[in-house]
Amino acid sequence: MAPVKVFGPAAFANVARVLVCLEEVGADYEVVDIDFMALEHKSPEHLTRNPFGQIPAFQDGDLILFESRAISKYVIHKYKMNEANLMREGNLKEATMVDIWTEVEAHTYNPALSPVVYECLFNPLLQGIPTNQKVVDESLEKLKKVLEIYEEHLSKHKYLAGDFISFADLNHFPYTFYFMATPHAVLFDSYPHVKAWWESLVARPSIKKLGASMAALTT
Amino acid sequence: MAPVKVFGPAAFANVARVLVCLEEVGADYEVVDIDFMALEHKSPEHLTRNPFGQIPAFQDGDLILFESRAISKYVIHKYKMNEANLMREGNLKEATMVDIWTEVEAHTYNPALSPVVYECLFNPLLQGIPTNQKVVDESLEKLKKVLEIYEEHLSKHKYLAGDFISFADLNHFPYTFYFMATPHAVLFDSYPHVKAWWESLVARPSIKKLGASMAALTT
Repeated sequence: MAPVKVFGPAAFANVARVLVCLEEVGADYEVVDIDFMALEHKSPEHLTRNPFGQIPAFQDGDLILFESRAISKYVIHKYKMNEANLMREGNLKEATMVDIWTEVEAHTYNPALSPVVYECLFNPLLQGIPTNQKVVDESLEKLKKVLEIYEEHLSKHKYLAGDFISFADLNHFPYTFYFMATPHAVLFDSYPHVKAWWESLVARPSIKKLGASMAALTT
Repeated sequence: MAPVKVFGPAAFANVARVLVCLEEVGADYEVVDIDFMALEHKSPEHLTRNPFGQIPAFQDGDLILFESRAISKYVIHKYKMNEANLMREGNLKEATMVDIWTEVEAHTYNPALSPVVYECLFNPLLQGIPTNQKVVDESLEKLKKVLEIYEEHLSKHKYLAGDFISFADLNHFPYTFYFMATPHAVLFDSYPHVKAWWESLVARPSIKKLGASMAALTT
């Protein structure tokens, strides 16, 4: 079976979201770099993969996919023989808990945390845009409220969807990884259960492997 | 079997997202109103349903859920004997197309369209806040680009995920319904395939029924 292809720079957060799932299920894959600075994601060729001109895109034979969370779920379902069962297929209640905390990442956690990553890391390092401290301060206030709720939740459950690792947890990895490279990483020290959960994630071989190349982006 | 419960005002867009799925699968349900103006969604009782203090929440026996898209998927999977199969369970390729266009709604369509709804409808009518025309204008420019891509896509497929109705389509209903009550509804006339798709949605009994009570909010 030919390896599946992921289109996009491996270090980009939304690309890493797909890669961590491919690593976790042990899939054979290839990363095809897309030159973001040269606007290759807006090229006619890439628009055939994703009409919205975003990354990542994904190819499995004749099947072309986009949207990182949808690609990730496809990968998990395709390789479902893997014992991890990261979407809890076959157990509606557990699968719904995975869905809930995946939605929380998209609509609550990430909107609070990712602006700090853009302002403190991506904008200054990659685009020479100075940090907007007002955006950082407002986001940190929102993030504290979110982390308080995560702390309470993770004091009762080892992982977000229950006492099992799932896509809901992995989905938090890329942006949190970059947050930990900002001067605000210490914030997590105030939430011991969240901190322990995060440490259990970064100890996983999949995340260690991807984190090594992602760390290069921040130095 | 006791009816499932949906907590939140039925006319709220994220509540209507769940209700349209309940209607489509023919589930027996009850809406428990939450007084948003009295901040009942931040009450200790509601926080036990949703720790983030948002609506809707959902109850099926002992099971309490939140996040409207996750609840909707639960409803569709629970009542999967229904011939509609709105998540295309059992067909990975089709199910992934449903996931992709559900993600597009959340991350691309809704962020362009919903600010127009808030600025032209919800803010002035419900909160007495005047319309911010700059936000409206910027959102409409974004929305035009999104609708161009939808137009091209819907010229090849009857519905978003393929030639079958799915959750991806229904998911667009609540905010688009309210957009059609703003002065900018005419924008859709420039995109005939999008317009035809929308008209096929509002012709559905589920949407006719819910739309009747939602329309009361806008007059």
